[in-house]
Amino acid sequence: MKEDGIGPGQIIRRKQDGGLEYHRDELTIEEPLEIRIGDKTIATTMRTPGHDEELAAGFLLSEAIVRSADKIDKFSRPKSARNRDNIIVVDLAGGKKIKLNASERFGTISSSCGLCGKESIDAIGQNFPPIKSQSFRIDIAKLLSLPQQLREKQSDFARTGGIHAAGIFDANGQPLIVREDIGRHNAVDKAIGRAFLDGKLPLDRHVLLVSGRASFEIMQKALAAGIPIVASVSAPSSLAMEFAREMNQTLIGFLRPPSFNIYSHVERVVLD
Amino acid sequence: MKEDGIGPGQIIRRKQDGGLEYHRDELTIEEPLEIRIGDKTIATTMRTPGHDEELAAGFLLSEAIVRSADKIDKFSRPKSARNRDNIIVVDLAGGKKIKLNASERFGTISSSCGLCGKESIDAIGQNFPPIKSQSFRIDIAKLLSLPQQLREKQSDFARTGGIHAAGIFDANGQPLIVREDIGRHNAVDKAIGRAFLDGKLPLDRHVLLVSGRASFEIMQKALAAGIPIVASVSAPSSLAMEFAREMNQTLIGFLRPPSFNIYSHVERVVLD
Repeated sequence: MKEDGIGPGQIIRRKQDGGLEYHRDELTIEEPLEIRIGDKTIATTMRTPGHDEELAAGFLLSEAIVRSADKIDKFSRPKSARNRDNIIVVDLAGGKKIKLNASERFGTISSSCGLCGKESIDAIGQNFPPIKSQSFRIDIAKLLSLPQQLREKQSDFARTGGIHAAGIFDANGQPLIVREDIGRHNAVDKAIGRAFLDGKLPLDRHVLLVSGRASFEIMQKALAAGIPIVASVSAPSSLAMEFAREMNQTLIGFLRPPSFNIYSHVERVVLD
Repeated sequence: MKEDGIGPGQIIRRKQDGGLEYHRDELTIEEPLEIRIGDKTIATTMRTPGHDEELAAGFLLSEAIVRSADKIDKFSRPKSARNRDNIIVVDLAGGKKIKLNASERFGTISSSCGLCGKESIDAIGQNFPPIKSQSFRIDIAKLLSLPQQLREKQSDFARTGGIHAAGIFDANGQPLIVREDIGRHNAVDKAIGRAFLDGKLPLDRHVLLVSGRASFEIMQKALAAGIPIVASVSAPSSLAMEFAREMNQTLIGFLRPPSFNIYSHVERVVLD
């Protein structure tokens, strides 16, 4: 008899007709990733394993710890730690260290560790200027094609909603990178981190599409990568909208073809 | 002419038929909350304002900083800060302080700041023992009624998916507390924090239902409150399932009547 009535790798499913059946579990893997600079832990995040270098790179970029990919010397795993796959060590160019105060805390929130939303926006603005150009635009037809393209690039399981996806697309609606993760922010970090490591920043002629909601932090990460248009399949937050208006980003929400909402800088959407 | 083509409080909506119309924006408010113990900042989280005391209480409980409500002397706002509504100050009983090392980091993840998922579970287990009793059970009919009840208690906007909800229900499917927040964890902290402040812990004859996914951290918070059954409208993560199996919690996912999945400890669901 199994200890809890369900064996390893098994789940019980209640079907539409009320009948029960055993299934294999197919769950999104969630494991902690500890990001270190040299021997110092700067953040720990619960993530889906894979693309850890991209995740670390995207994180360091959005925290303004590194501004260009050549500031990263190399990524490695600690030699001796037992769970080395859940630790990524970043060596900065020239052996640069960062200082951490007891009061300092990293994390996509805490860098903006503000007192009000407006101050959080201002704090980010000191690290990342608003998007400059208005020249990049996207056609409605292309915009409407993005959710389907994101889905096609996702794994089977992702379609069930168990995992978040972030995709970076060009003006023709062609995907540059799609990444998945159990954490919304991690998916964005991985996608942006890949582009960052490939020397493709700023992504000033690209759209970021996220499968979930668009929060303040998503906008911050997009800004760090220079992305002028952010689209979300679900709702943005109030602060995401304020941020987008201030930082000259176009924010699209509830992108569920044929409908969508535009929350800021409508001029980048060619409304035929 | 509005600076970005969209006025304050306005959004543009593309309708099903392709027509455009202006709407009022109705977005979930997102603002930072800084949680202090005395004069020391211990965490900052992006949250929907309201029920901040509950949020702080739930957070302190799940971080094992306080174990009983009488360890909290009082909540207040700082007297002079400009954005005092986004800061909550907790005074511990007897003026107790907590020490923070530079390497120590709070946040629902970081307390478990582990090297692998299994170690994270063990670390939590040192603070919170597994659920003891097997005696609490729930009928399928009651379980199936919970998502509808959660929706009925939510605000209008919540139903559009812009905000997360967490509800605590008894064996009859009656709601004890329902809370909403832009952050999944915050909604759970608020619901559990309320019960904690009201002296209702352990909630060992209750079910926690979350509107989103069930991650490791949700299970951790439920365990801190002694909740034996956690149900999620969406997918659990692999680590949530491992955690639940280890900690003697019943984990239900994809609770979308008439279907659902059971991932652990099926014996608490009366499968008629």
